[in-house]
Amino acid sequence: MKILVANLGSTSFKYKLYELADLLGHATSTGERMLAKGGVERIGSDSSKAFVEANGLREEMVIEAPDHAAAVNLCLAQLADPKRGCLENSSELAAIGFKAVMARGISGVRKVTDQLLRAMEDCNEIAPAHNPPYVAAMRLLSQKLPEIPLVAAFETGFHQTIPDSRKIYAIPLAWSESYCVKRWGFHGASHRYIGQRTAEILNRPDLKVISCHLGGSSSLCAISGGQSIANSLGMSPQSGIPHNNRVGDFDPFALPVIMRGTGKTLEQVLADLATRSGLFGISGHNDLRDIETAAANGESRAILALEIFIEAVRHYLGSYLVALGGADAIVFTGGIGENSVLMREAICANLAFFGISVDPKANIAAKGEASFHAPESKVQLWTMPTNEELMVARQTRDLLLAN
Amino acid sequence: MKILVANLGSTSFKYKLYELADLLGHATSTGERMLAKGGVERIGSDSSKAFVEANGLREEMVIEAPDHAAAVNLCLAQLADPKRGCLENSSELAAIGFKAVMARGISGVRKVTDQLLRAMEDCNEIAPAHNPPYVAAMRLLSQKLPEIPLVAAFETGFHQTIPDSRKIYAIPLAWSESYCVKRWGFHGASHRYIGQRTAEILNRPDLKVISCHLGGSSSLCAISGGQSIANSLGMSPQSGIPHNNRVGDFDPFALPVIMRGTGKTLEQVLADLATRSGLFGISGHNDLRDIETAAANGESRAILALEIFIEAVRHYLGSYLVALGGADAIVFTGGIGENSVLMREAICANLAFFGISVDPKANIAAKGEASFHAPESKVQLWTMPTNEELMVARQTRDLLLAN
Repeated sequence: MKILVANLGSTSFKYKLYELADLLGHATSTGERMLAKGGVERIGSDSSKAFVEANGLREEMVIEAPDHAAAVNLCLAQLADPKRGCLENSSELAAIGFKAVMARGISGVRKVTDQLLRAMEDCNEIAPAHNPPYVAAMRLLSQKLPEIPLVAAFETGFHQTIPDSRKIYAIPLAWSESYCVKRWGFHGASHRYIGQRTAEILNRPDLKVISCHLGGSSSLCAISGGQSIANSLGMSPQSGIPHNNRVGDFDPFALPVIMRGTGKTLEQVLADLATRSGLFGISGHNDLRDIETAAANGESRAILALEIFIEAVRHYLGSYLVALGGADAIVFTGGIGENSVLMREAICANLAFFGISVDPKANIAAKGEASFHAPESKVQLWTMPTNEELMVARQTRDLLLAN
Repeated sequence: MKILVANLGSTSFKYKLYELADLLGHATSTGERMLAKGGVERIGSDSSKAFVEANGLREEMVIEAPDHAAAVNLCLAQLADPKRGCLENSSELAAIGFKAVMARGISGVRKVTDQLLRAMEDCNEIAPAHNPPYVAAMRLLSQKLPEIPLVAAFETGFHQTIPDSRKIYAIPLAWSESYCVKRWGFHGASHRYIGQRTAEILNRPDLKVISCHLGGSSSLCAISGGQSIANSLGMSPQSGIPHNNRVGDFDPFALPVIMRGTGKTLEQVLADLATRSGLFGISGHNDLRDIETAAANGESRAILALEIFIEAVRHYLGSYLVALGGADAIVFTGGIGENSVLMREAICANLAFFGISVDPKANIAAKGEASFHAPESKVQLWTMPTNEELMVARQTRDLLLAN
């Protein structure tokens, strides 16, 4: 079964094309192939740059793509071009899967319908950076490409197994039920992958894993036997560990104080918390690599930003060690998790009480899928590239097979 | 030195009178005595009930106390009555100490001045249940009893040693500095006492202690060598672990959703989060004892409230085990911490990975100062009545001696 997984920006479209075994629930890498990847930038402008990679060959071209539907159509034509041979024709495509963030009252994996798009729109202000561009592009595609099944795999889906004791805020209970104010959790595709892949590598399905997805957006997830039991992201993608420009956990009783101090409205302060806060708000830099460089040059704000990030990760790490009753593996993924030797070292420092210890040389050398714990460590430490698109592809396949 | 410690409500005044050794920084119980305690209820009504306990004798009476100053004057006269002999006369009193919550830009222990009262007023909306009645009563006393030094020991004071990496939110840095939006931490007097008393009992000053103050208002504190390094209460007393009717940690991006759903203003929703949320919001009951009874009778909302409370405490427990790099003792205090066998058992359950284990019989029997860990436990577990008034008395003494 061939499934295209789309990654949508407000003016961009990137994709990966997978061929998957027609087996419901198949969750290991045997029988799976990525056939191609590609994308289009600056959709809607006069000239859009596009690229396609298949059979080890990368081609770049300038095209005209007035909207996302045109961009997708063009990419499908490229994939069906006999010289690439990825698709017989565009109708060979079983579905397009989307890593959608959240919808009101809906989670898991769903066919895209008008009702689903409206439920996503209802969450636009909770996920202001994520939902609006997805809804716009998905609506356009469903109108212009009605022959292709569209499937949304929600980032909240993996976290449906989190027990109510960690999902419900201590607010009037009717608010949780009526307004969907709960700790939904996000980064579901990434944490699901880390859970499955770690079980595959260690060859044990009953693992306790703490998945640390650290990047422009960051969260920790406690995974027991392949199921999420806790995620540091709460109601909104702005919560949890501080993100590149999103605030992380914050006290709502500070809002009137900030509103009075700045003369801003609630909406404006929330917009600042969603776009000008996080590591950027503290350090003035938007990328952890820049912050690490600035910290190495002695910038005190950059040093503070790193320390706050490390403490926030360790805060949830300790919490999840208790939630799981210990761990078999702590896995680092995402741009920071895979690449920052410094952050991994600082996050794992001083954990001898827990029987957790780093092999410093292995940490420096870790690349791709690699362990970096000391031989005596009770808990394995790993770096692991995540694969969110593969999860969306597998979930999309499962939805099609189950129906 | 004789110091009266006042506990103020909007229509009540309770006190304890201490005699302390005239030794700056003296922090053990030798040389300390509580001479008397007493209080007045229904201040401002036609007839107020008062009581005084001294020399093992308790007396109750009905008095006329039009305001807090009249109530304090009357109590001082009772204490100076030769039949009690607690004070030679009211001028023997060195100071009245107050367990004040917070003031803008001010922490630690301070003499009460107009400027200090204005700084406390600046925090009225952050601490709506706590600051307004204190400011009103302290202002009245400072006007009507100018001859008695008044001293405020702030609940945030003990937490001044928390490093910035755990104190600063990931917001634009100027907001932290200009508007005092930081994780201040509260329950300072209680956690300070637990830190000092645990060190005294275990006879080691370098302890790592996790102090669990669980009651109508709850927080955990990580204490290293007598100093606070983390507290679950953040900017406002509404944050952290859910309280009896205050929300605990919450995502500010839920506010517009709730405002639209309920038709309420921001101020109204925040008022609900400060008075109708917490364990009450979930369960409909206001006291943990009632919630435990309702849960035993199968009320699902009550069971959920208990589970949420347990998970929230364990969340911070794990975090602080990591922050401290392990712990020597976990100490339970406050109405719930000292009295709920069930909550202590559930909070300490399934911690074998950390080498922490309960002696179930000792847990059931624990009363007052008592340990309840199993012999093999790496971490000691204790119940311990707190003594916030004694901390305020010691701090007030130290301020007077240092000046």
